[in-house]
Amino acid sequence: MPMTISEKILARHSGKSTVLPDDLIEAGIDFALGNDITAPLAIEAFRKVGASRVFDPERIALVPDHFAPNKDIASAMQCKILRDFAREWNLTHYFEVGRMGVEHALLPEQGLVLPGDVVIGADSHTCTYGALGAFATGVGSTDLAAAMITGRVWFKVPFSMKFVYRGKLGPWVGGKDLILYTIGQIGVDGARYRAMEFTGEVIDRLPMSDRFSMCNMAIEAGAKAGIIAPDPVTEEYVKGRAKRSYEFYRSDPDAAFESVHEWDVSAFEPMVALPHSPANVRPVSRIPRTVIDQVVIGSCTNGRYEDLETAAAILKGRKVAPGVRCMIIPATREIYRQALRNGLLETFVDAEAAVSTPTCGPCLGGHMGILAAGEKAVATTNRNFLGRMGHAESEIYLSNPAVAAASAVAGRIVHPDEL
Amino acid sequence: MPMTISEKILARHSGKSTVLPDDLIEAGIDFALGNDITAPLAIEAFRKVGASRVFDPERIALVPDHFAPNKDIASAMQCKILRDFAREWNLTHYFEVGRMGVEHALLPEQGLVLPGDVVIGADSHTCTYGALGAFATGVGSTDLAAAMITGRVWFKVPFSMKFVYRGKLGPWVGGKDLILYTIGQIGVDGARYRAMEFTGEVIDRLPMSDRFSMCNMAIEAGAKAGIIAPDPVTEEYVKGRAKRSYEFYRSDPDAAFESVHEWDVSAFEPMVALPHSPANVRPVSRIPRTVIDQVVIGSCTNGRYEDLETAAAILKGRKVAPGVRCMIIPATREIYRQALRNGLLETFVDAEAAVSTPTCGPCLGGHMGILAAGEKAVATTNRNFLGRMGHAESEIYLSNPAVAAASAVAGRIVHPDEL
Repeated sequence: MPMTISEKILARHSGKSTVLPDDLIEAGIDFALGNDITAPLAIEAFRKVGASRVFDPERIALVPDHFAPNKDIASAMQCKILRDFAREWNLTHYFEVGRMGVEHALLPEQGLVLPGDVVIGADSHTCTYGALGAFATGVGSTDLAAAMITGRVWFKVPFSMKFVYRGKLGPWVGGKDLILYTIGQIGVDGARYRAMEFTGEVIDRLPMSDRFSMCNMAIEAGAKAGIIAPDPVTEEYVKGRAKRSYEFYRSDPDAAFESVHEWDVSAFEPMVALPHSPANVRPVSRIPRTVIDQVVIGSCTNGRYEDLETAAAILKGRKVAPGVRCMIIPATREIYRQALRNGLLETFVDAEAAVSTPTCGPCLGGHMGILAAGEKAVATTNRNFLGRMGHAESEIYLSNPAVAAASAVAGRIVHPDEL
Repeated sequence: MPMTISEKILARHSGKSTVLPDDLIEAGIDFALGNDITAPLAIEAFRKVGASRVFDPERIALVPDHFAPNKDIASAMQCKILRDFAREWNLTHYFEVGRMGVEHALLPEQGLVLPGDVVIGADSHTCTYGALGAFATGVGSTDLAAAMITGRVWFKVPFSMKFVYRGKLGPWVGGKDLILYTIGQIGVDGARYRAMEFTGEVIDRLPMSDRFSMCNMAIEAGAKAGIIAPDPVTEEYVKGRAKRSYEFYRSDPDAAFESVHEWDVSAFEPMVALPHSPANVRPVSRIPRTVIDQVVIGSCTNGRYEDLETAAAILKGRKVAPGVRCMIIPATREIYRQALRNGLLETFVDAEAAVSTPTCGPCLGGHMGILAAGEKAVATTNRNFLGRMGHAESEIYLSNPAVAAASAVAGRIVHPDEL
């Protein structure tokens, strides 16, 4: 029976030859993830049931990325729970401050999540790994607790939706714009409990960094997963990193999709999601004049090296506007090192941006750039919900790194060509 | 009549030919400072009295360095008060995130505080500028408010104490060790409302960075000010930076000091202040075995370029111990840039330390490395009071940057030669 890539991966991991949408299955997982917000709850549940084992100490990552370096005593205590648990159970992949990165950039970079995997994480943006051709999804903390013990998790097989991107991307337009446009078209519940499969000639030419951005935001349309079939671009990314074997799956040509959406993207310009919804999307040229107070370039959505390269190309030889704070947050230590060695960090500091050690930071209102009442920010992050980055009277505009960097220089939201 | 350097500066600024200890005087100030903790209260008082002017918009600095980049909504609102006030009154020296630094490193670096000045700041470590041969002291927020309006402030002229350092400093021993030793000898109230004048052949040879560290911690002995007579080392530091004229004062040879303390420092080793007092000082070799969780290299005490150079010399080619988080926080943007260009930041990141944008951060329990219960930190900061860096059950050991860096590598408090 023809199947989509998601169905194939779930079938393989549940020991079945085929699965159908709405089937309830129990799947073995290849990797599980928790962070300093979610893992403490999972660990509490783990201890409460008196668990005597973890399913595999090499298949669990604990990443204190949200409020670390510890912003306060509460976050220090949360991180300590992860650290102590990792020591107690000899977990290979506990990532300490200084070695750390934003989890969804870190795990692919370290070759810990791979094509064909089933990955769960107690974080909604776990769907990021779909960019590798894995079935990856966010779960609750108690699900993570059970999975840490058994290495298994229950799923209802999702229906799949197919998104086809035709044409050729223009300058300053990338994966972030495609996913913002998509969410703008289908809405924040447009893919509820669906697997969003991103395909087409545009995707074929898209670098991994942009594929990660797209799958990362599948959850913002309510999806269970975002996924892109692996190809030579994926292979190139994975081959030097993988610590174990992996498999490439593709949807069968006659696989059943619940719906198919097809767009020609050649005329697209950079997209911006206005407050307070990732679906409130307009092309940047159609945004009303918006003076800004802060720019954030970072996060699991757009804190990768290529994102920083784009920002640096715009900030080079320019200055952040006097009224603006510009936070640049490389998503991992490796990205930070590469940006340091290649002169990007110097470009940022010369431009009077502030460079942070890797952290989720302001994206979820954690730290390193929280907004006051009445302030407006452009951010390369993934959510612009009311109050997400600080005060309930602040506003977040989501964009790609080029628009964010250009807006930092202009002091208002602009198309990079306006500089 | 013979006078000390402090008396001369205060006499000159109060329009008198001489002043005596215990005299009440009104002095004109050359510069005033507030930060994101203290300035909002000063601004509130300023507004409450309906002030219609600031005494000089070029002589007031507002520096949001304590909880910025904003750690939470409250700190965002505090910083906004500074920003709005600076705009309203056209203050020249408001330092935004990305252009900012820790105030007491920033103001001297920018040539805003100068030899012969009277400087007040609503921050206890304002005494740092004494290293330039200025009379500088911390005041309360309402005093700052009055000074911002009138440019004048009341003082009781302090008695002066003379500290003479003889001999030659050994390897890894510097200004931080001298001041820790001094506080250890005289206690946290040993110089209460006194001007501590640091003199002697050791001081003559001491670089500015170490002089700043010493004067910075005068307050930890209860002093009103710490001061070092300007000399060619001072001149070398000031000449390219000063934005206005300045004057060198020296104590008269027969000036009256309340007490004189003289030590030969040749046999000194690096000093450590154990919890929970900066006066609880021992040579590093006499510290009981102490396993640590965190190292902080930064702050207005020891976040200068020379401090980072020392730390880098030790961390080069080494790694931070697995159980340790090592935070490196260059004190200003200029220090950050210089450290970036000269490869220091790369050394730190290669060593698996985390590098932060300039901020006071964890020094005062603000953010960027707060301690959990039971954790121990070595810090190049200035205070190890109970709970200062986080949980009331955490411990802080104060040291110089060499001991801090070496301890980060060893995972316990060590002399740098032990590596």
